[in-house]
Amino acid sequence: MVSGSTLERRAARSPFAGVLAPVLTPFKHDLAPDLERFARHCRWLLAQGCSGLAVFGTTSEANSLSVDERSELLAGLVASGVDPARLMPGTGCCALPDSVRLTREAVSAGCGGVLVLPPFYYKNLSDEGLFRTYAELVERVGDARLRVYLYHIPQMSMAGFSPALIERLLGAYPRIIAGIKDSSGDFANSKVLLESFGPDRFDVFVGTERLLLQNLRAGGAGCISATANVNAAPMVALFRTAEGDDADAQQAKLDAFRALIEKGPVIASLKEIVAHASGDPAWRDVRPPLVELTRAQASALTAELERRGFAMPGLRGA
Amino acid sequence: MVSGSTLERRAARSPFAGVLAPVLTPFKHDLAPDLERFARHCRWLLAQGCSGLAVFGTTSEANSLSVDERSELLAGLVASGVDPARLMPGTGCCALPDSVRLTREAVSAGCGGVLVLPPFYYKNLSDEGLFRTYAELVERVGDARLRVYLYHIPQMSMAGFSPALIERLLGAYPRIIAGIKDSSGDFANSKVLLESFGPDRFDVFVGTERLLLQNLRAGGAGCISATANVNAAPMVALFRTAEGDDADAQQAKLDAFRALIEKGPVIASLKEIVAHASGDPAWRDVRPPLVELTRAQASALTAELERRGFAMPGLRGA
Repeated sequence: MVSGSTLERRAARSPFAGVLAPVLTPFKHDLAPDLERFARHCRWLLAQGCSGLAVFGTTSEANSLSVDERSELLAGLVASGVDPARLMPGTGCCALPDSVRLTREAVSAGCGGVLVLPPFYYKNLSDEGLFRTYAELVERVGDARLRVYLYHIPQMSMAGFSPALIERLLGAYPRIIAGIKDSSGDFANSKVLLESFGPDRFDVFVGTERLLLQNLRAGGAGCISATANVNAAPMVALFRTAEGDDADAQQAKLDAFRALIEKGPVIASLKEIVAHASGDPAWRDVRPPLVELTRAQASALTAELERRGFAMPGLRGA
Repeated sequence: MVSGSTLERRAARSPFAGVLAPVLTPFKHDLAPDLERFARHCRWLLAQGCSGLAVFGTTSEANSLSVDERSELLAGLVASGVDPARLMPGTGCCALPDSVRLTREAVSAGCGGVLVLPPFYYKNLSDEGLFRTYAELVERVGDARLRVYLYHIPQMSMAGFSPALIERLLGAYPRIIAGIKDSSGDFANSKVLLESFGPDRFDVFVGTERLLLQNLRAGGAGCISATANVNAAPMVALFRTAEGDDADAQQAKLDAFRALIEKGPVIASLKEIVAHASGDPAWRDVRPPLVELTRAQASALTAELERRGFAMPGLRGA
């Protein structure tokens, strides 16, 4: 069993320590965002033990939403009763005014933090250009409550955070620059960040539960992972018992589940699973440019999940 | 000399045949877009002989602008007296509602066409997902006046248009799908498109004047090129005299100028040149994540231009 003190130390360092879900965004048939289903899924994820909700991430199809849509969904979610302190919305856009607006709104709503993607259109960005992007954001928001988590996902954004850039940002905005989501999939990178900046003043979340145990052992804060949308409870269990004897066995089970999800397109697969488990086919809809699973892909996936005895308890009643 | 009939045939096929500038977007010192300078530059470019203005392209830092900012700049430009039939604004965003809004506004304003970038966040998009993106856009805009130019710039958007996808789009929306800007830099690709779909029902614009003469000889419509912002007149001259004896010599001169621009970051270099030629230093400002030239880069560039006798006639008075 894990010593209480390890968990307590983690929690004292980071209000988000644990497992966060980058929440799927459900759409209505006309592809408008569906606040009701969204809020229901958020409540279910918190009931599963998620320490936070990274709404408007890559898995959320956030960049397929307009700024107004993100703004309305966030306001609606908070109005529905979800604790804003548990929210780490994605607010990083290509256009600075968009990032400033969404970040301001998140801070005003009481969100515990924001996860900020770098601008992702131009390629080969300089550290100077990235520094200015974040500096302008922090200065324009101008609120001491702001907590920025850097979103490092170079395979998607084509721009990444070098240790030198993070050092400069931390020097300019200590406390405000609160951590990173490292979705590079390269734990060597996470480890360098932990050794250089963490764990006391800089939270490192890995972007896949495959690296959860390694990250916790190295002093990291947890993970923010797509699959938490359907498999959060076992991930949370590993987080809570990471010092226990069966931690490696738990990790192996998480890996096996993830491997199944990664056989197909991840977002469409997760939406298929929620649709299937909730009996609510509307969950299947994705916005272009993504496409839902084919019937054959969907059948193969759900058959395999049934064979493994997979369930999402409490989802139908949530 | 070119036979009048060749130019006439091109003009009859394509209202934009010629040289288009993806217009630089000037900013004020607080990084707000500067409509006055923008409209002045647009008028100057038309006076240089540009057949159209591809405002809000890559060179325009369009993805660093919010949708509201693009909307206001377009409305302001038309209100300032620029002929909307000459405008081909970029309206393709990652989020479908944004693309629909900007495209609708462009059609309502009387723009001759729109240049539509594919969504550029998700990678490895399927042709089905891209088809749906453009189909939803065309259907939602629902206006027979719409003319869509596909924006093929895979090195930046990380998504491209296969011949099969273009075939499907042309089949579904003939007339509305009007052409392509091929910024791949690979003329073999442009040639395949011309042979498959052009030149009568599908305009092929190359994305660099390096390929202008090749494109015209193969039946293409012209080019849409960043450097037109500062060097349009010689490009227009080549377009008009492409069948003349000195066409290759003209092309070589264009290539030499472009090589100079490509020594540094293109957008910052072009803004430096406009700032220098107009005596208006405000032109240097770029939005993060881009950065302006260093003093050393700027001095080297302008010294080399002076050595070559480069000028932008009429710019100061425009």
